[in-house]
Amino acid sequence: MNIFVVNAGSSSLKFQIIETDLELIEKHADRQLAKGLIERIGSESLVTLKVEGKSTLKLTAPLRDHKAALNYIIKWIINPETQIPGIEGIEDIHAIGHRTVHGGEMFHKSIRIDKEVITAMEDNIDLAPLHNPANLKGIYAAREVFGPAVPQVAIFDTSFHLTMPEYAYLYPIPYQYYRRYKIRRYGFHGTSHRYIAYLYRALTGKSKEDTNIITLHLGNGASACAIKKGKSIDTSMGFTPLEGLMMGTRAGDLDASVIEYLCHKEAAPLEEIISVLNKRSGILGISGLTNDMRDLLDEESEHKDRRASLAINMFCYRIKKYIGAYMAAMNGADAICFTGGIGENAVEIRRRVCENLEGMGIILDEESNKLAVGGKALLISKPESKVEVWVLPTNEELVLARDTCRVVLNASGK
Amino acid sequence: MNIFVVNAGSSSLKFQIIETDLELIEKHADRQLAKGLIERIGSESLVTLKVEGKSTLKLTAPLRDHKAALNYIIKWIINPETQIPGIEGIEDIHAIGHRTVHGGEMFHKSIRIDKEVITAMEDNIDLAPLHNPANLKGIYAAREVFGPAVPQVAIFDTSFHLTMPEYAYLYPIPYQYYRRYKIRRYGFHGTSHRYIAYLYRALTGKSKEDTNIITLHLGNGASACAIKKGKSIDTSMGFTPLEGLMMGTRAGDLDASVIEYLCHKEAAPLEEIISVLNKRSGILGISGLTNDMRDLLDEESEHKDRRASLAINMFCYRIKKYIGAYMAAMNGADAICFTGGIGENAVEIRRRVCENLEGMGIILDEESNKLAVGGKALLISKPESKVEVWVLPTNEELVLARDTCRVVLNASGK
Repeated sequence: MNIFVVNAGSSSLKFQIIETDLELIEKHADRQLAKGLIERIGSESLVTLKVEGKSTLKLTAPLRDHKAALNYIIKWIINPETQIPGIEGIEDIHAIGHRTVHGGEMFHKSIRIDKEVITAMEDNIDLAPLHNPANLKGIYAAREVFGPAVPQVAIFDTSFHLTMPEYAYLYPIPYQYYRRYKIRRYGFHGTSHRYIAYLYRALTGKSKEDTNIITLHLGNGASACAIKKGKSIDTSMGFTPLEGLMMGTRAGDLDASVIEYLCHKEAAPLEEIISVLNKRSGILGISGLTNDMRDLLDEESEHKDRRASLAINMFCYRIKKYIGAYMAAMNGADAICFTGGIGENAVEIRRRVCENLEGMGIILDEESNKLAVGGKALLISKPESKVEVWVLPTNEELVLARDTCRVVLNASGK
Repeated sequence: MNIFVVNAGSSSLKFQIIETDLELIEKHADRQLAKGLIERIGSESLVTLKVEGKSTLKLTAPLRDHKAALNYIIKWIINPETQIPGIEGIEDIHAIGHRTVHGGEMFHKSIRIDKEVITAMEDNIDLAPLHNPANLKGIYAAREVFGPAVPQVAIFDTSFHLTMPEYAYLYPIPYQYYRRYKIRRYGFHGTSHRYIAYLYRALTGKSKEDTNIITLHLGNGASACAIKKGKSIDTSMGFTPLEGLMMGTRAGDLDASVIEYLCHKEAAPLEEIISVLNKRSGILGISGLTNDMRDLLDEESEHKDRRASLAINMFCYRIKKYIGAYMAAMNGADAICFTGGIGENAVEIRRRVCENLEGMGIILDEESNKLAVGGKALLISKPESKVEVWVLPTNEELVLARDTCRVVLNASGK
């Protein structure tokens, strides 16, 4: 089964074509056939296209909207010169999987997209005003381009976290705000946290019931998740992705009173301050240099930049506190799992996060830690470490493809 | 030395007269001679006055302002019928100690109040618009009533936390907001956290260097503090007392985006939403019943009220997470110390906070826990608990009196 997976942003579209079926999933032998990215949809768009094992094609094209972008991709896919293995015509795409950010409280699992699902997603636009409309654009466009006969599946970033207990997902604000406006912790990055829990089980042979881990998805966006008996019981992103860990440009946790004070001091409207907290804070805000952790680590080691160093230390300290908090929430943990661009590659970040945590039963193996770069799955704690530390490469697109396959075949997932 | 200690609120004034000196401090033999409270200053005020060991006097009086309230108290103090031991005239009050909330970054220690201190406190009004003006009213009034010859000392709620490292006190927002507007974590309840650390050392015989504890001040306001080598290295209240633990009416930690969403949904100005987060959230907001933990526990046990139960569980869960976070921040802790009205009395809260923390090395002794009520200092963990759990009654007024005495005598504190 060839699955076309889509991650549609407001002016971008990422896709992969993945061959999978229940047997391939079982054998972990699913295969990525092609992938690509279109940026700046609506003006002179940047297109990057790649067939597995072949060189990458980069070009520009004037693409008006998501539908034009999808049509462009399909023309490329079915062009005989492109030669994607097993794909000759559009009929060789058997289903489409959409990454959808916000499923509210309704979608506990990935689901086949029909009219009701679309209506529910439209109802949730309020909760994710940036992401849901973009996801919907992708869905509308795919329906037009592929036709209604090709099944489409929505895989929500929030679904995995819907197992959180009420005392963990509610905020201590007047209860009617939850009832009336659905204000609560939803959490995001669910596809990634769920995949890491799956990979941990696959590598350790543990059952779901025995999976008590803390997953750290550290990229430009970052979140931690407490996974008890295989289920998310708490996560650091909340009502929106602003809460929790310090991120590339997002602040994460802070005193809510700061907002009022800043509005007053800067004589700025609330929207502007919230935008600063989302787009000019975090690592970028403290360093004043960049939101890219690689550059920041270079600045620190090469130029001894004080604020680069400060940003890195704040980033690591705040992760450390979440590790402790979630260990307490779960009465201890069996493993800490690093993933995401930073989690999979930044040796120094992992070293600093795990430093001085022997009192919590966490002892890093510095040598193994150094080897875990470039998407390797590796145990990086010492044998005597009570809590294991893993680096596990995430693969959200694979989850999208597998979920799509399972939903279409009506099979249960893991 | 007889110290008059004052805690002035915007329309209230609490005082104690405490006899202390360096020898009495050493012997822990300081003595409370009298205490009182005046509420509703500015209208028909409620006055409560008590001489140690005698019955309490309750009455009303029309008191226009803080100066009138202080004059009223002094008339009572020097009235021969009142018979406060050792006090015959106003000259028997040797110094005045003021609880002052916000010392900004300037006041690392308690300090004798002079013109410069007052100017600095006035400069900090912006940071504590509710508290600092009230504290200043108390200082101005005391100067007028007692005369300039009686030394006055300011004891700041923030001083104890000024030892926090930069990576713990900064927020991940643009760095210039710290430089320009002094936005950072300050922390409060410093007098209480400091006293509990002192009491822990006094009871265990440990040195400052060996004091690695987490103090939980749980009252209507609530905060946690990580104390490493006797110094505050992190605390849950932040730029204002709104951040951190769930409280009687304050929300504590929440996603900052909730504020924007609520302003929009409620069509309310920012100030109103911030006021809801301070005055109608927390335990009151979730339960919809009360901000009083005693009433809430009764509602839960007697009427099985679902939302009372929910509020209690959220309160405990959030404390649990801070215990874990601070254990990670300190690489483990030797003890958890409960204090404050709830911390010293609510057996069930302590039980629920410590429940399912064996994985963190915390094992409560349920029997000892039940005995620790009404201001008793007691170890309530089992001998095999790696982390001790203590109940330690706080005494902020005693700290005020002792600091005042030491500052006046130029002696160093503990």
